[in-house]
Amino acid sequence: MSYTAPIKDMLFVMQELADLEEITTLPGFEDANFDTAQAILEESAKLCGEVLAPLNVEGDRNPSSWKDGVVTATPGFKEAFRQFAEGGWQGVQHPVEYDGQGLPKLIATSCLEMLNASNLSFALCPLLTDGAIEALLTAGSEVQKQAYVPRLISGEWTGTMILTEPQAGSDLALVRTRAEPQADGSFKLFGTKIFISWGEHDMAKNIVHFVLARTPNAPEGVKGISLFVVSKFLVNDDGSLGARNDVHCVSLEHKLGIKASATAVMQFGDHGGAIGHLIGEENRGLEYMFIMMNAARFAVGVQGVAISDRSYQKAAAYAKERVQSRPVGSSAKQPVAIIHHPDVRRMLATMRSLTEASRALAYVAAAHCDIGHHHPNEATRAEHQAIYEFLVPIVKGWSTELSIDVTSLGVQVHGGMGFMEETGAAQYYRDARILPIYEGTTAIQANDLIGRKTVRDGGAVAKYLLVGIAKTVETLGRHQGAAFESMQKQLAQGHRSLEAAVEFVIANIKRDPNAVFAGSVPYLKLTGLILGGWQMARALLAAAEKREEDPSFYGAKIATAQFYAEHVLPQAAALETSIVSGKGNEGVLALAEDQF
Amino acid sequence: MSYTAPIKDMLFVMQELADLEEITTLPGFEDANFDTAQAILEESAKLCGEVLAPLNVEGDRNPSSWKDGVVTATPGFKEAFRQFAEGGWQGVQHPVEYDGQGLPKLIATSCLEMLNASNLSFALCPLLTDGAIEALLTAGSEVQKQAYVPRLISGEWTGTMILTEPQAGSDLALVRTRAEPQADGSFKLFGTKIFISWGEHDMAKNIVHFVLARTPNAPEGVKGISLFVVSKFLVNDDGSLGARNDVHCVSLEHKLGIKASATAVMQFGDHGGAIGHLIGEENRGLEYMFIMMNAARFAVGVQGVAISDRSYQKAAAYAKERVQSRPVGSSAKQPVAIIHHPDVRRMLATMRSLTEASRALAYVAAAHCDIGHHHPNEATRAEHQAIYEFLVPIVKGWSTELSIDVTSLGVQVHGGMGFMEETGAAQYYRDARILPIYEGTTAIQANDLIGRKTVRDGGAVAKYLLVGIAKTVETLGRHQGAAFESMQKQLAQGHRSLEAAVEFVIANIKRDPNAVFAGSVPYLKLTGLILGGWQMARALLAAAEKREEDPSFYGAKIATAQFYAEHVLPQAAALETSIVSGKGNEGVLALAEDQF
Repeated sequence: MSYTAPIKDMLFVMQELADLEEITTLPGFEDANFDTAQAILEESAKLCGEVLAPLNVEGDRNPSSWKDGVVTATPGFKEAFRQFAEGGWQGVQHPVEYDGQGLPKLIATSCLEMLNASNLSFALCPLLTDGAIEALLTAGSEVQKQAYVPRLISGEWTGTMILTEPQAGSDLALVRTRAEPQADGSFKLFGTKIFISWGEHDMAKNIVHFVLARTPNAPEGVKGISLFVVSKFLVNDDGSLGARNDVHCVSLEHKLGIKASATAVMQFGDHGGAIGHLIGEENRGLEYMFIMMNAARFAVGVQGVAISDRSYQKAAAYAKERVQSRPVGSSAKQPVAIIHHPDVRRMLATMRSLTEASRALAYVAAAHCDIGHHHPNEATRAEHQAIYEFLVPIVKGWSTELSIDVTSLGVQVHGGMGFMEETGAAQYYRDARILPIYEGTTAIQANDLIGRKTVRDGGAVAKYLLVGIAKTVETLGRHQGAAFESMQKQLAQGHRSLEAAVEFVIANIKRDPNAVFAGSVPYLKLTGLILGGWQMARALLAAAEKREEDPSFYGAKIATAQFYAEHVLPQAAALETSIVSGKGNEGVLALAEDQF
Repeated sequence: MSYTAPIKDMLFVMQELADLEEITTLPGFEDANFDTAQAILEESAKLCGEVLAPLNVEGDRNPSSWKDGVVTATPGFKEAFRQFAEGGWQGVQHPVEYDGQGLPKLIATSCLEMLNASNLSFALCPLLTDGAIEALLTAGSEVQKQAYVPRLISGEWTGTMILTEPQAGSDLALVRTRAEPQADGSFKLFGTKIFISWGEHDMAKNIVHFVLARTPNAPEGVKGISLFVVSKFLVNDDGSLGARNDVHCVSLEHKLGIKASATAVMQFGDHGGAIGHLIGEENRGLEYMFIMMNAARFAVGVQGVAISDRSYQKAAAYAKERVQSRPVGSSAKQPVAIIHHPDVRRMLATMRSLTEASRALAYVAAAHCDIGHHHPNEATRAEHQAIYEFLVPIVKGWSTELSIDVTSLGVQVHGGMGFMEETGAAQYYRDARILPIYEGTTAIQANDLIGRKTVRDGGAVAKYLLVGIAKTVETLGRHQGAAFESMQKQLAQGHRSLEAAVEFVIANIKRDPNAVFAGSVPYLKLTGLILGGWQMARALLAAAEKREEDPSFYGAKIATAQFYAEHVLPQAAALETSIVSGKGNEGVLALAEDQF
């Protein structure tokens, strides 16, 4: 159950597709370059491969546990977290002024992938802390930033996102937790929150909760929600820890996967009120939470890439080792390693191409984010930020949906052994299943992609990306060989399908919103499929250029791109049909409630 | 976590698609008719809904357990098995002369579906006993039949299939278990077998194992394997039980799902040799095992249908009950049950249409089997038997692959709650994962479909079915309305894709077998998709005819068929591209072993 970070593949994507060179010339990133990136990836790979990956199975067998309100993380996690924190890994992408490393999100994304591939449950804790840091940096006061950010970056403390209540899951309008203002400007919070990842644990000295709650007389619905910071231990003015706050973990959930990550039911205010402080302005909590959530959504998308790669690595290793049956179309009498059987090869190539496509899309998105924040030109920043925001729900929704398919194939490659828990392939299948759910289900991502990202700007970003794809299709046409021909043909068809889908969405959103939203997830999947395919096409062009330098490595990139073109991209037409069939409320919506 | 057998849907399929009326006029089935079928289904539904379904969660939380070689089934299972046996349910499809009920496989299939939907782990035991009975009836001597079959049918004893060894999974050529002939005509068996479902338990007085082993000097490979019956307790000539045989369960596996079903490691001959008796002729064991296996493969396909339906029922119930978010495109301020949200509706319609299509295909296959065995005309029997055999790998492979997707959607509909084990949706997701693996992985089914079922007869059965589909397409064209138009268009396209795939397989199997087998699973999926779609089209035609009689029920059939046409059938073209892209060994096989 080892994990070897695919550094070479990561660097290929960063250099050839995500323009690492440009990123490292942006103001603030001048100290970074290819060599820095490589050095960081190698260090990160060591920690992930040697310390975190071996704890992954342990976490599954011996989940974090609750006793009398105290949660003890899986044995080994506390020490591993210490190493993670001391290595400065929490701060990779955060500002130098708060003791972060100030590196590009592009580089941080590869570290994030490794962290999650090695141990998804463990990685969820720093992932949420990242979100907390981003929310503070955006909406917190300077005092709050100074009080919390450096300690979150150092790993002394960790952060959580506390939104969900039993009646308020996807629908945050239904949040009922109360925040009562106190004379000193603080608030007292009362309520029950559920599904709080790492809401309580023993890996850090303090836990900083970011909590959605309502102040008295706040408007109903999402416009009456405020964001509060509530720390497990109160923080004195000098930064030292004070009394235990009135926020307690009353139980942990028993889950399908990511068992080591404590999923807490958190009770606020059972003993007089949990003391909290308002972040930013009253009633703007949801807006701030979306900052955390967008960061977290991107990161969950990377979790999808990560678990796919882990599952692929394990399946490929098993397929090379397991000897079973004679080769097809050969007179050989001896059984061979199953990787020689065409269907096993097909499964592995599927896993690999989906993983590479979703990785490429995520890294490219990260690069847009870097440009969107660091480019000296404001218009350029805005343009790239808009592309990044368009891509976030796709990275989140598409990569995580894929991870279900990939980890399922990972089980299948192992045959009967895959169903045995000791083998380990099943853990990835179980762990991955949360990814299309938390931080907004795939449907929520798809609604975001349609409403805020496609319709609001009249399809501007979508059409801009379509122009880019068309250019790549044209470039592909100038090359010869089966890989280019297949990719050119399928990407062109995919482009037509995506164009038709974008037009359908924009044309029908007002007059028939149900029809559009009935195809929202197929629309998200189609954008992922085509944008991922675009990256595979760009990878193909880059690899063909460099093939001579390293025939095996670049040859594999070419073959993987061809596989994606012939076996994955053709799904575009079916998705298009599914999207445009929503019209007239037939099909999807034809069945009445009582007919189900 | 209740289960209500969909009797009305089952009877619709039996009557309208699987020609129950014709089946019940076949020699031997004269006592059965629609009313009999309905009465049997209602009785079966009671046992399954009231006794077995409530034990399903218990089995997951409290799996069958091993202590000192003794396996104790999940609490409640033994009593439930007694009720199952006393009700005569093991004998539904078996001959009256051995105390069975001699009913058509078509009717038995609906009982099988209910049994598996209510409790997959439990149902696996009778499923294997069915296979054992079929093998004995085909290859056993009259003495063996008399000795074992009535007791297997009565449920006094149960049966197992014992094939797998650590080095011999899909590849039975590698079986090493030895069978040494004894002076009295019996054999002594020595070896270790793994993955033996219900290999040991306390629900029956005796367990009859059907074991693959090699006699001394047997030829190498699959041509040197014989089949032996080895009972847990030896059987005296008068039928009473004798000494404990030297076959022991040395441990149970810890599995992803179907936890209640004891998956045993069985040790033969550690204390002098397990006494066994040859079934049929020496070295023909694999052939006999395939009789059991084909029966079991069909049944596992039905398990796929069953777990899909169970998962669908649960998701639909939750979606009607869970209130969250306001409706799309409405000025309503109040949140509604999530079934009103288009994406939830899409997920449920997907689950429902896949379940119905796979059910229809399985039941139609069962009807072909009935005609294949009972029709007075030999040529008609042969024709229908050939169709049944063509359909078995599709029912097995396609229905079980679908069940992964359906149960995954079942989790997704529940949102965060779906990931919590207490909710129960996750159990179906875990349980279903074994189905595309055991009794031959999907790749093994696909190889069978290509090699024995498509190529051997030059595509005769495949082409015969294509003619039937073309006729239905024509009939659809004579009707008006969106459902007919979509179905006509998509089924016609599907027909073209399947025709192209069949031609590709036949044209290339000799000159480029690797290319064909690289597309074997897509070929299986395509046949399932189109043959399932054909049944949905036939259902559409039948429902439109009867619509006035019961507008809600038949209207749902029409809407479900339309959904399948618009959202499922369009995948055909992508599968076709995937299949024919195998040519020239590029794509799938372009990556060398060391490039993975």
